[in-house]
Amino acid sequence: MGDVLAFRATNKKLKPSEKLLPKLRPRWAIVRVRLAGICNTDVEILRGYHAFRGTPGHEFVGEIADVRGVSDALKKKWVGKRVVGEINVSCSAYGYRPVCTFCQRELKTHCARRTVLGIVAHDGAFAEYLALPPENLQTVPDSVSDEQAVFVEPLAAACEILEQVNVKQFREAAVLGDGKLAQLIALVLRTAVPRVVMYGKHKKKLALARRAGIKTKEVSGDASDAQNVKESYGLLVEATGSPTGFALAQHMTEPRGILVLKSTFHGAAPIETWPIVVKELTVVGSRCGPFAKAIALLRSGKVDPTPLITRTFPLKEAPAAIRFAQKSGVMKVLLKP
Amino acid sequence: MGDVLAFRATNKKLKPSEKLLPKLRPRWAIVRVRLAGICNTDVEILRGYHAFRGTPGHEFVGEIADVRGVSDALKKKWVGKRVVGEINVSCSAYGYRPVCTFCQRELKTHCARRTVLGIVAHDGAFAEYLALPPENLQTVPDSVSDEQAVFVEPLAAACEILEQVNVKQFREAAVLGDGKLAQLIALVLRTAVPRVVMYGKHKKKLALARRAGIKTKEVSGDASDAQNVKESYGLLVEATGSPTGFALAQHMTEPRGILVLKSTFHGAAPIETWPIVVKELTVVGSRCGPFAKAIALLRSGKVDPTPLITRTFPLKEAPAAIRFAQKSGVMKVLLKP
Repeated sequence: MGDVLAFRATNKKLKPSEKLLPKLRPRWAIVRVRLAGICNTDVEILRGYHAFRGTPGHEFVGEIADVRGVSDALKKKWVGKRVVGEINVSCSAYGYRPVCTFCQRELKTHCARRTVLGIVAHDGAFAEYLALPPENLQTVPDSVSDEQAVFVEPLAAACEILEQVNVKQFREAAVLGDGKLAQLIALVLRTAVPRVVMYGKHKKKLALARRAGIKTKEVSGDASDAQNVKESYGLLVEATGSPTGFALAQHMTEPRGILVLKSTFHGAAPIETWPIVVKELTVVGSRCGPFAKAIALLRSGKVDPTPLITRTFPLKEAPAAIRFAQKSGVMKVLLKP
Repeated sequence: MGDVLAFRATNKKLKPSEKLLPKLRPRWAIVRVRLAGICNTDVEILRGYHAFRGTPGHEFVGEIADVRGVSDALKKKWVGKRVVGEINVSCSAYGYRPVCTFCQRELKTHCARRTVLGIVAHDGAFAEYLALPPENLQTVPDSVSDEQAVFVEPLAAACEILEQVNVKQFREAAVLGDGKLAQLIALVLRTAVPRVVMYGKHKKKLALARRAGIKTKEVSGDASDAQNVKESYGLLVEATGSPTGFALAQHMTEPRGILVLKSTFHGAAPIETWPIVVKELTVVGSRCGPFAKAIALLRSGKVDPTPLITRTFPLKEAPAAIRFAQKSGVMKVLLKP
């Protein structure tokens, strides 16, 4: 193979760059990207978050094109497999010894030396090819389409909530936000909690959630609206992606309730912390989650994320796709190499 | 008894007011205050927190002077008993039926209709007498002095952390702040965690902690100092009482660690919430705690808070005592009616 297409985040713009195939460490795999998803984090990265200068993109489904430094038998077993990939690359993949205290505790997503696909020091999926260690790859069952599989990474992040909180103790839960991640979170919660209510400010997005069996309530985007919301919940997930979401989330979480925080945005917001103390809230930060659980949910048909796809662009139109992804009302935008 | 002395928070000042004994509901007790403590919350109340207009003061030890509407036998049993008092007065004390959902779950400190001694709609301990329902009172063992017993309320608040977090899983813990509550928290944690490190900015206060077996580190009060602190902890308690404490606390809590939030101050601080998400921190708000546990700690001698007492004022000098309590380096100030 000769030069291949990849995009790079450079000076807050996404620029194409012909480059060689990703350089492989022994036993790492090269994955040919079949489909990649654009996440709000990618948009934040292009705004300067993490000061990342490589190829963005951490949501993908692909197929293994090559594995270096393994036996022919192992190579034959792997090459051609359709896979998704865990984005945190930890100590063991780089051969660090001893592994860090987090890897020792099997908290690989918190590895002290980790690189993160398309986010931290590791070129990502807005490219024809990417490289990952096989330990990060999971095969995709035939019954799960590419359009479903490309959601495994954000769906796993939604599933992380189930790992952190015993959600089955709740008869209802609220999700703040109506964007892509909020929708996936509502779908995942709905598999375990009888009543899930989404609070959002976009009529069309809320309608999408309703079609999937989620209750919805429209709220104004104005932070001063918080005091007008009378309902409160023992379990609430903040996934607005907005600095004003936290205050509303505090207000709407019952005393002794659990407030799961999913929004990552760059910069500080003015926050009163005394309600956390007075109401004795538990605020649980939640990031990457279990891929196996997400794949199982797709395979079972309990969660179908494909209604969230707004449009698929060819990879070479990635800059236009990123611009489109930021338009009002647009949900998931995919890139197809 | 004729008119008695009480102070009232009026227009951000503490003013004396001769008044009748507190009005009693059937079966409530009148307590003659023996000693009351000044807490930072009292100072905040005088700055407008909670818009409270009554008699402040929620830390006290006293003796039961009277109980209304009970049999002579019961009255005889109660009157003269030395007691401390839980400050949250809940549904059952007011005879509300049905009780609120929090009282149903025995979360009386979160009662939806609660009044709070000296803080919310209930006259407090900066007075000769106060009124509380007997269910809020706990007798003080003879071996515990008035000077120790007056700390039961804040010590119980420190003990609340042990109720919320399994602290025994940690070999070390950090306390941010060197004030009165921070000191009590460090003493309580030290009964269950082998190594407790206090981070503060006042040499004299840190020395006080060292004398009680707490490790200490001096940090600058400047928020920009945060990045210079290299240590991190799996369990950290934020008790600085300062808006800048939260950022340092986030920085110093390990990924997947527990950050207990104790500081209540009025107003908003600019806070970046993404570290909570990226590090998957659990932030636990913590307020009032178990009085029985606090009394047991005092009785056992495992915790002695009396070195924290800076000075005792006569009740009639309460305004001067409040001013004195706000001076640099001053720890606990007591009022003696």
